[in-house]
Formats: sequence, C-alpha cells, structure tokens
Amino acid sequence: MAVGFTQLAELVSISGVRLGTTCAGLKVANRRDLVIFEISQGAQCAAVFTRNAFCAAPVILARQHLSLAQPRYLVINTGYANAGTGERGIADALAVCEQVARLGHCSATQVLPFSTGVIGDSLPVSKITQGLEGAFAALSGEGWHDAAHGIMTTDTVPKGWSRSIDIGCKTVTLSGIAKGSGMIRPDMATMLAYIATDADVEAGFLQQCLNEAVEVSFNRITVDGDTSTNDACVLIATGKSGAPRIEAPSSEGYQAFREALHDVCVKLAQAVIRDGEGATKFITIEVRGGATKEECSQVAYAVAESPLVKTAFFGQDPNWGRLLAAIGRAGLVALDIDKVVVFLDDICLARNGGRSPDYREEQGKAAMRKAEPVVCIDLGRGIHSTQVWTCDFSYDYIKINADYRS
Amino acid sequence: MAVGFTQLAELVSISGVRLGTTCAGLKVANRRDLVIFEISQGAQCAAVFTRNAFCAAPVILARQHLSLAQPRYLVINTGYANAGTGERGIADALAVCEQVARLGHCSATQVLPFSTGVIGDSLPVSKITQGLEGAFAALSGEGWHDAAHGIMTTDTVPKGWSRSIDIGCKTVTLSGIAKGSGMIRPDMATMLAYIATDADVEAGFLQQCLNEAVEVSFNRITVDGDTSTNDACVLIATGKSGAPRIEAPSSEGYQAFREALHDVCVKLAQAVIRDGEGATKFITIEVRGGATKEECSQVAYAVAESPLVKTAFFGQDPNWGRLLAAIGRAGLVALDIDKVVVFLDDICLARNGGRSPDYREEQGKAAMRKAEPVVCIDLGRGIHSTQVWTCDFSYDYIKINADYRS
Repeated sequence: MAVGFTQLAELVSISGVRLGTTCAGLKVANRRDLVIFEISQGAQCAAVFTRNAFCAAPVILARQHLSLAQPRYLVINTGYANAGTGERGIADALAVCEQVARLGHCSATQVLPFSTGVIGDSLPVSKITQGLEGAFAALSGEGWHDAAHGIMTTDTVPKGWSRSIDIGCKTVTLSGIAKGSGMIRPDMATMLAYIATDADVEAGFLQQCLNEAVEVSFNRITVDGDTSTNDACVLIATGKSGAPRIEAPSSEGYQAFREALHDVCVKLAQAVIRDGEGATKFITIEVRGGATKEECSQVAYAVAESPLVKTAFFGQDPNWGRLLAAIGRAGLVALDIDKVVVFLDDICLARNGGRSPDYREEQGKAAMRKAEPVVCIDLGRGIHSTQVWTCDFSYDYIKINADYRS
Repeated sequence: MAVGFTQLAELVSISGVRLGTTCAGLKVANRRDLVIFEISQGAQCAAVFTRNAFCAAPVILARQHLSLAQPRYLVINTGYANAGTGERGIADALAVCEQVARLGHCSATQVLPFSTGVIGDSLPVSKITQGLEGAFAALSGEGWHDAAHGIMTTDTVPKGWSRSIDIGCKTVTLSGIAKGSGMIRPDMATMLAYIATDADVEAGFLQQCLNEAVEVSFNRITVDGDTSTNDACVLIATGKSGAPRIEAPSSEGYQAFREALHDVCVKLAQAVIRDGEGATKFITIEVRGGATKEECSQVAYAVAESPLVKTAFFGQDPNWGRLLAAIGRAGLVALDIDKVVVFLDDICLARNGGRSPDYREEQGKAAMRKAEPVVCIDLGRGIHSTQVWTCDFSYDYIKINADYRS
C-alpha cells in the first residue's frame, strides 16, 4: 500500500483536452489498459524522454513526431513496453499511430505513442487498434480519473494532482497524472506523466518550463536506481483559459504558473515514490552545504540507492553507520568527514566523524518508526543543496520483482 | 548457504607466519572473534585499503603504521567496525596495538589493526586486550583454519585458498583468507583479506603485485554496491622459501608468482560473492567489445548492481529486457544498441536492439535455473573487456539487513 496516500485528489478538467480510456484486454480482461488524450488545435506540447540508450520504440517515434508536427493525440498502452523490440517495434508503434490518425482525422505524425510494461515482448497491435474505437467513444473532458487508472502497471494506486491559479483576471488550471512504481530513477526525464493546462504558453518557453519543473521533481526520485527505457513526461498547454500569454520569465503570471507547475510535478513524482514497489516508508534525503549542486546529488543518490540504507529503514533500525558509509563512498574529492553533520528529522545522529555526543539510540528508534522520515546531510563545504525522494527495500520489493512476469 | 561452496580448502602453512585465534566474547560468548598474525622479522608487507571517505579508525592507523615501520603483527577483531567513532576510535585502536606490542615485544607502530562489524559503536577495548593473551597463546603456523573462522561476521562459510608453485628449485606457497558477505563493492581495495607467501619479494614490487592482483579480483566484485568503511587487503612475503628474490617483471619465477597470486585473490574474492548475503546465485557479468576498459566496467557494474536484474535472477525469470535497460542506462556516450549482443551462458538473448530471432523462452528459463549463470555482453565498439562477479537479491538479503543489529 502506498505510503501516506489516502485517495486520488479531485482532477479538474482542462478546456481543450479530452481523455478516453478503455479495457482493450491487452494482458487481462476488464482492466483499463488503453488511454488516449485528444488535444485541441493550436495547443502547445512539450515533452522530455528517457536518456536510456535502449529507449523504447514509442519513445523514438514520439520524439520524431514531436519534431514534425503539433500533436493532436497521445495514445498510451500498458502491459507491453515495446522496448528491445528492434525495427518491428517501430513499425508496431507506427501502426497504432496510424489507426489513431484514421479515427481522429489527423496525420499519424500528430500522434505521440507511449507504452509501459514488460520489455522485449512485441506490441499486440490488433488488440490495440480494435480497442481504440472504445477509447475514442469514451472521450470526455472529465476522463482524468479513468485515465489515471488506465496507465497503471505495478502501481497500487492511481496518481494525479490539480492546481488552479489566477493570471490576469482568468483562472488557469493544471492537471496531471502519472504512473510508476519500479524501474524508477528518471534521468533528465521521467516515468510516464501527463500534465495539461489551459494556460497559453509559447512553445519554446513551454519546453523550458517543463525542463525546469522535471529537474526539481521527477529527476529527484529513485526507487531502485534503474532508469526505465520508456520514461516520458508531456506538458500540454491549450491556451483555452483566456489568460494572457506566457512567453518569458517577465510575462504576467509566469511566477504563479511556474510555482503551480512545480507543485503538480512534485506531487506526482512523490506519488510515484509513495507507491514505490514494496514501499513502507517515504524517505526524503536532503543534502546541503555542498560545493556544487552535482556533488549534493551524488551524495543524495548514493544514500537513497544504498540497499543497506534502504533495508535499515525497512527494519526501522537507526543504523546510522550505513548513512556515513554511503556518504563516504559517494566519490567526493577531499571530503572532510569531521565537517559532515547528519540529522534524522530533528535528531543529530553524527558529527565530527562519529556519533553525535548527545544522540541516544531511543531517539533514533522512534524516528525510524515514522512513515515519512527525513535524512538531512550537511557536507559543511559550500552553499549548494538538493533533495531526493526515495523509499525503503522490503520483502515485497523482492516478491514483486522476482515474480513480475508470471 | 554459499553458492557452489563445499568446504574450506586445505590451507598450507607459510614459514614465517603464525596465527592465533581466540574467543574474546566481544559480541557473543564462545565465538572466535579475535585473530592475530605474527610475521617474522624482515618480511615485507603490502596493503590496500578502502577509498571510502568515512574510513574506519583502524584503517587510518594501519596506513600510518605501515608508512613508519615493518609490521610484526596484525590484529583483527569482529563485531565492531570502529568506524564513525571519531577521535576516540583512533585512541581505542592504538590502545589495542599497544597491548599487542607489549605482548609481542615490538613497537606499537609495528602492529596493524583491523576491525569489522557494526559501524558507530566504540571498540570494547578491555575485552580485546584481555583476549589478546589467549590469541598469543594460540599462535601456530597451522592456525589458518581457525583464523578463517575468526574473522567471519555475517559470513556463513569461512573463506581461504592456497597455491604452491616452483621458483628455482624451491617450492613457494601462497595462502590467503578473507571475510565479507555484505557492504561489498570494494573500491580500489577490498573487504578484509590476508594473504601470506614465503616468496622473497622486494617491498615496492610486492605492493605493485598486490595492486594488480586486487584490480582483477577484489575490485571486480559487488554484492550491493556499498563500499565498506573497513576494507583492507594485506599481502605478506616472508622470504623463507629460499627461492630467488622477485623484484621486477624480469625476475625468475615472477610470472608463476603473479599467476598464483591472482588465482588466490580471485578464489577469495569469488568466495565472498558465493557467500553474499542471501545469495542463491553466483553470477558472472562479462563485458567485451568496449572502447575502453572503464566503459566495460561501467556497464558491468550497472548490470551487476541493478536491483531488477538481481531479483530476476532470484526469481529465475529470464527477463532479459532488464539487462538491456541496465546496459542502456550505464551512461555510455553514443552507444549503438543495434551492435550490442547479450548472451546468457551460450544462449543469445538479444541482438540488433531486440530479442534474438532464434531465442526461445524455455532456453532462457533453463539457463536461469543454473546456480552459476554467466551473462556476456558484447558492446561491439572496441577491443576492451572486463568481468565482474555478483550475486542475486533474495528475501534473505532483506532479512539479514533489516535485522542485522538485533
């Protein structure tokens, strides 16, 4: 069960975006597994994709299509990642786009394909193309909840978030959904996430806004350090709110828009970690006092991805020595360990190269029992900082991943 | 239970080295937990240590002592790593060295201290100094088996290996013992390993020989990617065999000595992986066809440390897409995925960016059932290669590490 998750937030519809979800029977019957987004003419669309060299066929095709035309449709299937499928994978993804184009009366280059599921198996193209009619029939501005369910794989809960702000005298809304639970260590990109807004944002600037938001949200999470082959995050701006256009940091409403976009991205990224495979803890790793932001990241990920740190959290064991060991092996040049200070919530665990003199084991034990502990590491050598969100390693992580395909 | 491990090999005594092991009651009663090595006058000693910035007090002290004098004694305790213990840790390790020096009639700088166990707790100095008398009383050239037991922590089996070669008309022998099971990703060093030989090797050259041997053995293994704070590997050459002196690659017997040293180091390093925490598989990751050795290592470790790859091996699931995903995220610039070929034993899983046309799932399943699978990855972009040994991630890994301190 996802950590600290109650139920899916209300997802507000976005003028200019309709969603259609259907059960195409891709892996099992009666499961929502195929989703389309319909995007109004003139909407702008920005996207970031995985940097994994073995990226999936739909990622390759979506990148191409995005460079050729303004997207009118997104199509997302679960069950099959269509990665590691060679040339046939590209042809299959294209066939799906062509069927969407036929039903939606647009060009195939105006369709962006996305897939998530097992790597290596070929896409069940005819099931998908047959399923598409149902997805089109279901198209609705209110389709966000269904779509949030429709993109899930090993996720145990649907993930979504909406925010509204005022720009000029107009209300601008952002809504987003995401999926992801394992193979999570986005690299300059993310798992699958789709965010739409009725703000009017210039295309190039929209991409800049997305890049920046991804950097502080999806690029700051890790479940297992395994960057997926299919990561993608799309931001659609329909411009239907009637609010003034945003095209530069000086534009009216930009700061509010930026803050709201970061909020939606962070909420979605955190939801992925809260639902990390087998997670029983939602752990924040803050690193500050670094000479550069990069070295803060290095330390944060070394700690967040240490199997020994993750199992200690699962065991609720304040084995802070494992934190020091992970910090020490993160590869920082000339790290002065006497300057490093490590906190768990507000408890100082270590300073001056060893246990903090006033630390008592019972304090650590109590803090480890919390569902959402915060580790704060001060490197004592600069002004930079960062944070990363992660989860623990439990028996269920092993169970889910030893048996995933069966 | 360790993978492919039957029983401890016969360990041949080395003239000029005596070992003493005792039960000092450091953590539990009646467990061998304190070991000393006595080294004859004039023996040469080389060592490599962890590069973890939070290195343990005994590592700091052993490095210092080694730079000041020729070692006469090694002293090794289990149960307490004496890492993350600040200034007091140094004082404690020094107190232990001083007691060894008193009993052994040498200077404290001629004693190298080593510790392994939980990070952060202070050394039980008086228990150790009391226990030392028993260790001295037990000193014997035949003490290798006891010592192999005496340095174990979460290890389930003792680890050791001996090799004899002829140099000139003399028999030269190398014997080594090692411990290690978790927090294993040696970085230019190793967990605890001690190797002695009666070969006569010049001091500087002995260090060179050790560096090279460690590079192809202890530096090629990983259980969990967590580099320990206490890694150390020591090579002692007593010169008592009477064989000609080795001081350069051109020396008589050097090639045989080198090969034997590599063999002992590889056997010990592999034994650590066979006994990796919770291991059910001993997995070899070979990477060839790389543009550099470094990029081969990058790929090998990305695969070997991927929790998804490790759990797939535990589940005996030939989920080869996870291998591709790990290769793809290893960070190689301009990797042409169409040239990458992946084998599991002699079965070709993937080529041309996808599943190999002649691969059948039953083949993969059969290969995954083997206790010692070999993954071979050809990057198709150069002549360099490397290999790394690792193990799988099982329920027992979680169990051992969620509960280690209790």
